[in-house]
Amino acid sequence: MIRLSHGAGGVETEELLEKLIFSRVALKKVGEGGLGLDFPDDAAAIPIGEKKWLVVTVDAYTVYPPFFPGGDIGLLAASGSINDVLMLGGRPVALLDSIVVEEGFPLADLERITQSLISTLERLGVALIGGDFKVMPKGQVDKIVITTVGVGVAEGKIIVDRPRPGDVVVVTGPVGDHGAVVLAERLGLGGGPKSDVRPLMDLYPLIEKYREAINAARDPTRGGLAMVLNDWAKAGGVAIVVDQSKVRVRPETRAVADYAGIDPLNLASEGAAVFSVPGAVAEDFLRDLRAAGFPDAEIIGEVREGGRYKGVVLARTEVGGYRIVEPPRGELVPRIC
Amino acid sequence: MIRLSHGAGGVETEELLEKLIFSRVALKKVGEGGLGLDFPDDAAAIPIGEKKWLVVTVDAYTVYPPFFPGGDIGLLAASGSINDVLMLGGRPVALLDSIVVEEGFPLADLERITQSLISTLERLGVALIGGDFKVMPKGQVDKIVITTVGVGVAEGKIIVDRPRPGDVVVVTGPVGDHGAVVLAERLGLGGGPKSDVRPLMDLYPLIEKYREAINAARDPTRGGLAMVLNDWAKAGGVAIVVDQSKVRVRPETRAVADYAGIDPLNLASEGAAVFSVPGAVAEDFLRDLRAAGFPDAEIIGEVREGGRYKGVVLARTEVGGYRIVEPPRGELVPRIC
Repeated sequence: MIRLSHGAGGVETEELLEKLIFSRVALKKVGEGGLGLDFPDDAAAIPIGEKKWLVVTVDAYTVYPPFFPGGDIGLLAASGSINDVLMLGGRPVALLDSIVVEEGFPLADLERITQSLISTLERLGVALIGGDFKVMPKGQVDKIVITTVGVGVAEGKIIVDRPRPGDVVVVTGPVGDHGAVVLAERLGLGGGPKSDVRPLMDLYPLIEKYREAINAARDPTRGGLAMVLNDWAKAGGVAIVVDQSKVRVRPETRAVADYAGIDPLNLASEGAAVFSVPGAVAEDFLRDLRAAGFPDAEIIGEVREGGRYKGVVLARTEVGGYRIVEPPRGELVPRIC
Repeated sequence: MIRLSHGAGGVETEELLEKLIFSRVALKKVGEGGLGLDFPDDAAAIPIGEKKWLVVTVDAYTVYPPFFPGGDIGLLAASGSINDVLMLGGRPVALLDSIVVEEGFPLADLERITQSLISTLERLGVALIGGDFKVMPKGQVDKIVITTVGVGVAEGKIIVDRPRPGDVVVVTGPVGDHGAVVLAERLGLGGGPKSDVRPLMDLYPLIEKYREAINAARDPTRGGLAMVLNDWAKAGGVAIVVDQSKVRVRPETRAVADYAGIDPLNLASEGAAVFSVPGAVAEDFLRDLRAAGFPDAEIIGEVREGGRYKGVVLARTEVGGYRIVEPPRGELVPRIC
């Protein structure tokens, strides 16, 4: 029987998908140099020319309520797919959307949501090129489900996440705000944090500039920073050591996490990115990031030869020791993204 | 307030989407020669080279129950997106899927569904290159929603639906079977028809051969043949005259339609296609279609100069007169596809 934890984006999700899908699909990518189910990332890449790829990503958004502090599901759906395209090194050019709403859903709310999605795309110069729309009988769909497909073009290199020893790990700003909003909503807490949801298009010039240097890039959504870093440690066969005091968490987000007894590293962000870049470019990259509208960007850790900690993420604690950062398990915050 | 009819794929759907989306999106396609929201079709096309396009399509599938006579939602989701890619003239190469299931959904059922989707793709040589998986709390999602993204490549020409005077309309076989299955399910009728759901990959060699000649191609899913022909009449500024006696409808499907008082032209097919080709190639095309595994293919009508019937579909009735075939209206069969 399917449990909520199967959809939480942590260990149970990985195990279920491995069993039902990954282990059974023979054709996992298109073309030499393509990227697909053969590699755990949020987007796929299809070669369309000499060092040129089309990047395609799909994500379902079901956050309830559809309007939340800091945003709404329309902004979330647009941002999420745009960010996934960016994190593979693609320049987002188009979106497709599939909307399923419940019978009785207020038309004015639907209008606010679609307008939010449309305005976000227009502001960024991203085309809406296709979609689908269905209505479900009352009580059988949780108000609204939006699935978006992001399409982008990458030239020169796609960013396939393989951090290397000697890399540093850079985060664009505070993490966990979106997850904390949803958690606060579930726990009935008021006056909490605002979601950080936003499209990260301003990162594109940096991705262009540092494309060859960047060894990994991801937006830490479902499963949070803990999931991304664990994926990376495994993919690169390395150990990743983070200094948890360098990971910025807003006080209101930390308050929600503390109240719920959850490590903020497990909370989703929807407007943050994490990069693994060689130490040699780290200072330049950080300076450019801060100048590009990410003043709180910070180096939070480093990538080391795996050795006995191959595939493991370690956090330096405030008292000087180390603890293993496990990939998230359990249902935690299943409905954030 | 959103009503079921808003999602039925007929006039109300068109009006709602025109108001909320089409009229508000400025950027509707990518690149010169691209196809997007600027044209009513089930897929979008992105230019990726000289007379070369990437075709992308998205569709949400929510049929309940997930297993039905003739198929299941996994086969349906794979077939639907593959067929949409084909109908734009694309060779399907890859699929992405997004699955949302309800907490408590039986694991064995999920396994049957994903295996059905995976086997369908494998049989056709189509890669599964990405996806998303979410679990929703019980009672808030109608068991399972699968959204699939089809990706294909078209070379030479994409088939943008613009039927021309002098064309004939060709249907690959009987229509309405899938719609009749869902209708029978809703009405509690037993012993009814089987769904015709299947991928139409066998059509691809014909699409290649007749690419330059084909002026329109579509699979008549939600809204049925009536919706496709009305879309076409408007898009081409023509009149379309069908001979309803030439439209094959299986007896068991006709029985369900009669019982429900519904024109079979409004019932969805999930394994049929309709083409508009110049009269000059009609006989060759029909012969090749029949030889390619569509023995029941038939010429069902013709395309004429619009004149006073510009944008209108007429059906020659069995008693010799004509009636106007309206685009479907009302909720009819909202959950078929």
